[in-house]
Amino acid sequence: MTRYLTLAACQLGPTSRTASRRDTVDRLIYLLERAATGGADLAVFPELALTPFFPRWDIEEGAELLSFYEASMPGPETTRLYQAAAKLKIGFSIGYAELVRDGDRIRRYNTADLVGRDGRCIGRYRKIHLPGGDEPTPATTVTLERRYFEPGDLGFGVFDFAGVRVGMAICNDRRWPETYRMLCLNGAEVVLIGYNTPSSLDEAPEMDHLREFHSHLSMQAGAYGNTLWIAAAAKAGMEEGQMQIGGSCIIAPTGEIATKATSIEDEVVLYRSNLDLIATCRKVNFNFANYRRPDQYRLIAERAGPI
Amino acid sequence: MTRYLTLAACQLGPTSRTASRRDTVDRLIYLLERAATGGADLAVFPELALTPFFPRWDIEEGAELLSFYEASMPGPETTRLYQAAAKLKIGFSIGYAELVRDGDRIRRYNTADLVGRDGRCIGRYRKIHLPGGDEPTPATTVTLERRYFEPGDLGFGVFDFAGVRVGMAICNDRRWPETYRMLCLNGAEVVLIGYNTPSSLDEAPEMDHLREFHSHLSMQAGAYGNTLWIAAAAKAGMEEGQMQIGGSCIIAPTGEIATKATSIEDEVVLYRSNLDLIATCRKVNFNFANYRRPDQYRLIAERAGPI
Repeated sequence: MTRYLTLAACQLGPTSRTASRRDTVDRLIYLLERAATGGADLAVFPELALTPFFPRWDIEEGAELLSFYEASMPGPETTRLYQAAAKLKIGFSIGYAELVRDGDRIRRYNTADLVGRDGRCIGRYRKIHLPGGDEPTPATTVTLERRYFEPGDLGFGVFDFAGVRVGMAICNDRRWPETYRMLCLNGAEVVLIGYNTPSSLDEAPEMDHLREFHSHLSMQAGAYGNTLWIAAAAKAGMEEGQMQIGGSCIIAPTGEIATKATSIEDEVVLYRSNLDLIATCRKVNFNFANYRRPDQYRLIAERAGPI
Repeated sequence: MTRYLTLAACQLGPTSRTASRRDTVDRLIYLLERAATGGADLAVFPELALTPFFPRWDIEEGAELLSFYEASMPGPETTRLYQAAAKLKIGFSIGYAELVRDGDRIRRYNTADLVGRDGRCIGRYRKIHLPGGDEPTPATTVTLERRYFEPGDLGFGVFDFAGVRVGMAICNDRRWPETYRMLCLNGAEVVLIGYNTPSSLDEAPEMDHLREFHSHLSMQAGAYGNTLWIAAAAKAGMEEGQMQIGGSCIIAPTGEIATKATSIEDEVVLYRSNLDLIATCRKVNFNFANYRRPDQYRLIAERAGPI
């Protein structure tokens, strides 16, 4: 019998700097309800879905910055989302800023959790490819992710979601082919991706018209070359003066975009995904064990950049 | 001053099983002349450009099979091509079946040579990702590359062509993201690819409509994700009863197809390629040394397939 999983990409429009967690969680629950109504088994929310994309701001350490992090997931303000999911019997992944107290040290990560249909966390991923820097660079669109987060330390994990092997990646991770390959080698069938991607970059405005093309190109090639289903959700639209691309989508292991958001607002797109298509795609070109040549790829795991 | 290199993709229509090397070399010289007339500095010919794609046939060891290999390059029948290139002051890469006498052993490779503007060989690549098997598989389009060739043993080399760093890949190599990454890490700015790709596969005819899309998707993502210029040349059209895709093209480091063949016959497409665009693309996302995480990619060089 053919295996299907109905995926939902829950795109979010902008979130203001002063939005309450309560209002944001209301939006998430509404999207989750729409996804469940459409028959979705598993939904993906964007990166940093509970807050605006605060790494675009140079914020001093203090109360405001701290307010963007979650000290526990679920926490007092997010429990309702997990309860709604359990009631709707829908799984989801959600991106958020994670704060961990490690003895005297505080550790912070750009994180996504995978939550089962019973509302319980079954997997965690911490963003491995952090873009930007820890200080603003002149004439460059600000992304202070390297100040606000440590690099992910949990590897490219793959988790069992109702018999389907699911992995996660976050935003910039999707531009690196190693992300998909590592998830593939760890057995992923489905990859959930959340992102915040500015429509324009001060360092290369001549490439602004390619921003959504690059987002899709990376994910389509990742899906095709690794025989994966991908569901990807953007935080889109004009958020506090910065326009972000939408383009939330579900991509088949053929590399085809099966469905795509057409707004830059809160929007759900769904697709009933045939998991058996993965086996067909592997039959055509990608019998990995037979054809990959890991002995020839040594440098990939040894050298960061060209010499 | 902006650095430019004018690239030419020299697509070939079909070559019959009984075509003479003389006639085939005439076609190559004509394409090279057209490329040079258009101002090309460097042209790419397809995989196995001197013969039909003979791995589609189950041929016994003997005179006919031997006739498809080159015991030296240039050899008696190909010297004219190298002389023409030197006269036209144009470089080229060419795919061919290589036969090497190694003491008592004979070794055979699916090879591409890079030839400088003076007609001298400056680089050699032997195909690393050999598709198919060494015996025909029922209900599967035949590709006996694993019988007729040994896997490439020269790594993913990058060579200096008039101050530009050039690498090569052959056909199936282009579907594996590791190919582009290895060439990138070895310093490539330009990658030349030749291919023979059937329009239809017996093992999955339901994907035939995606054959050219997959070819372009793989190369566009390889160009974008590794900030490379790619020139790719197909052996196209109905060759001895097997239709092959065309789609020869030149792809920018932005992932955009800059020019593309519209026939499935002998055809040249050219593009004046701005090598400085590579630096712009690295500035936007791909400062490799700063952002790649080789410690996280260990499995890529250790494990062939998913567990």
